[in-house]
Amino acid sequence: MPDRRFSVADPPAPDHALDDDASLHYAWDNGLDPALTVAPGDVVEFGCRDAYDRQLPREPTVDDVRAVETDGHPLTGPVAIEGAEPGDTLRVDLLGFEHEGWGVSAVPPGERGGGLLPEEFPDPHVRAWDLDCEADGTPVARFADEDAPDVAVPLAPFPGNLGVAPAADGPHDTMPPRAVGGNVDVKHLTAGATLYLPVETEGALFSVGDCHAAQGDGEVCITGIEAPMSVTARFDVLGDRAVTAPEFETTGPFTPTGRDEPMYATTGIAPDLMEATKEAVRRMIAHLHDRRGFAREDAYVLCSAAVDLKISEVVDAPNWTVTAYLPESVLA
Amino acid sequence: MPDRRFSVADPPAPDHALDDDASLHYAWDNGLDPALTVAPGDVVEFGCRDAYDRQLPREPTVDDVRAVETDGHPLTGPVAIEGAEPGDTLRVDLLGFEHEGWGVSAVPPGERGGGLLPEEFPDPHVRAWDLDCEADGTPVARFADEDAPDVAVPLAPFPGNLGVAPAADGPHDTMPPRAVGGNVDVKHLTAGATLYLPVETEGALFSVGDCHAAQGDGEVCITGIEAPMSVTARFDVLGDRAVTAPEFETTGPFTPTGRDEPMYATTGIAPDLMEATKEAVRRMIAHLHDRRGFAREDAYVLCSAAVDLKISEVVDAPNWTVTAYLPESVLA
Repeated sequence: MPDRRFSVADPPAPDHALDDDASLHYAWDNGLDPALTVAPGDVVEFGCRDAYDRQLPREPTVDDVRAVETDGHPLTGPVAIEGAEPGDTLRVDLLGFEHEGWGVSAVPPGERGGGLLPEEFPDPHVRAWDLDCEADGTPVARFADEDAPDVAVPLAPFPGNLGVAPAADGPHDTMPPRAVGGNVDVKHLTAGATLYLPVETEGALFSVGDCHAAQGDGEVCITGIEAPMSVTARFDVLGDRAVTAPEFETTGPFTPTGRDEPMYATTGIAPDLMEATKEAVRRMIAHLHDRRGFAREDAYVLCSAAVDLKISEVVDAPNWTVTAYLPESVLA
Repeated sequence: MPDRRFSVADPPAPDHALDDDASLHYAWDNGLDPALTVAPGDVVEFGCRDAYDRQLPREPTVDDVRAVETDGHPLTGPVAIEGAEPGDTLRVDLLGFEHEGWGVSAVPPGERGGGLLPEEFPDPHVRAWDLDCEADGTPVARFADEDAPDVAVPLAPFPGNLGVAPAADGPHDTMPPRAVGGNVDVKHLTAGATLYLPVETEGALFSVGDCHAAQGDGEVCITGIEAPMSVTARFDVLGDRAVTAPEFETTGPFTPTGRDEPMYATTGIAPDLMEATKEAVRRMIAHLHDRRGFAREDAYVLCSAAVDLKISEVVDAPNWTVTAYLPESVLA
């Protein structure tokens, strides 16, 4: 069996473990009892369900996706860190991830909306992925259906949703990211990254879930490569470093191979940044459809899994430029 | 003298050359007489003035920047390409650039506005750059003033403003980018990139200018490292490839070293994509000021020259995540 672990060199053994069952919750809430209380410096392994809450079969149909019922992202935690007080900063060292060999991406059912271009994709679509290694050992995701397009998206696992409890009482929806983190969907929070989060409640109350085996900047169809995964992290409390939103240190990856490589890029140029973003993505979908033979739905999924959105300029009034970058290497 | 050329391997000799004087113009206009008419496959070398139209001394003051008078970006051209008709696509192979050893960045005078955060930077600021090589041969930009912070921004020259004449008659402002290109400020249009532009007028009428020795995605203070430069490009006309806005092939660079390297990142999380962008940049300026000792104005300039803006997610309603990435390697 190929190695499914992605971790820093010589990762420390966890001091604690939480499975993806007993400590599950579906909202951010500073009133939740901690599933665990740890000391600064402790390492915790979190079992995390996929965003579909383990309700999908291995190769799901659109009806299977429609039938999923959750009240939010399944999150594992919360973990209280001793001594963390409002105004402190929680340092989270992401030490490693281990997936289970599969993932799934979907264009959401139209009646639910969602995604960057819901009006252009009224019909749902789903693709299962196999997470495996190439002959040379490179870990990649490939569509599980052998009739699907032949793509190889290098794996770069990270948690889409991770954060601490907000100061405001009561349950908070897991969908929007916030100053305390949550569903930030930052693809660069891979093994080795260090995340800084503002603490708003005693003990911080950290939770994590919604892991992605890979994702493009933007996550345009609203799913990355959604996968159940374990997450191992170390916690520290910093009293001398204030942050007002998530900040982090990382090394990427900034391309699939980790070094400069050929990309195809489309632009969106418009006086509204969201419209420029939509235009760039529409043109990338057209490129994949017209010139590379993808069905439009598969192109949308591939954009969400592997195409990166950059803001090229946001100062040349009245028009801004957003650019979408497709690494040629994923078109196997 | 260090080599100031950046080019593809074995660049072809130019078939034609335009200097930065005789063929200067300051607007996009399909009524301009071509400075040159070339055959498909021809290579042209363009002399390009810097965005300040060669009106600045080598180490300018704020008053020097205030005194610059132009009616737009100085552009060199237009070049007519034989056979190009509306509906065709112009293929532009960017073959090489040669700078003159200096550049300049400025926070614009407040009374003119401009930049992503004009309300926070009412006072103008200017920094000259020396473009030279490190001991190991890496070409970098360093602030010319020896009292300025010690930074080393790797050079990655490209033209900020390049495109073809729009279909609509009359002069068009050079500031906003358009479907036919212009001031797109895409930092990845470096030597070796291939650009595709929609042709809207007979002969296409290509012009270029506003070269940057380096720039971060976003160009947040409204200037990259502005530098006079020669641009060498080859033209072809494609009748079988339709584009509706600039598209391109490139290899980056996606990091200063061309491979994964440490970055510090700040996030902006907001229900408006522009506000999320501003928040991410404000936090990066605060990081550079509070923790790395930069004056806020120099931090703003460094963000514009070397910090990349990515759209991490644009689907987790109601909040979007924009992230600003600072390569640690530029803090020499």
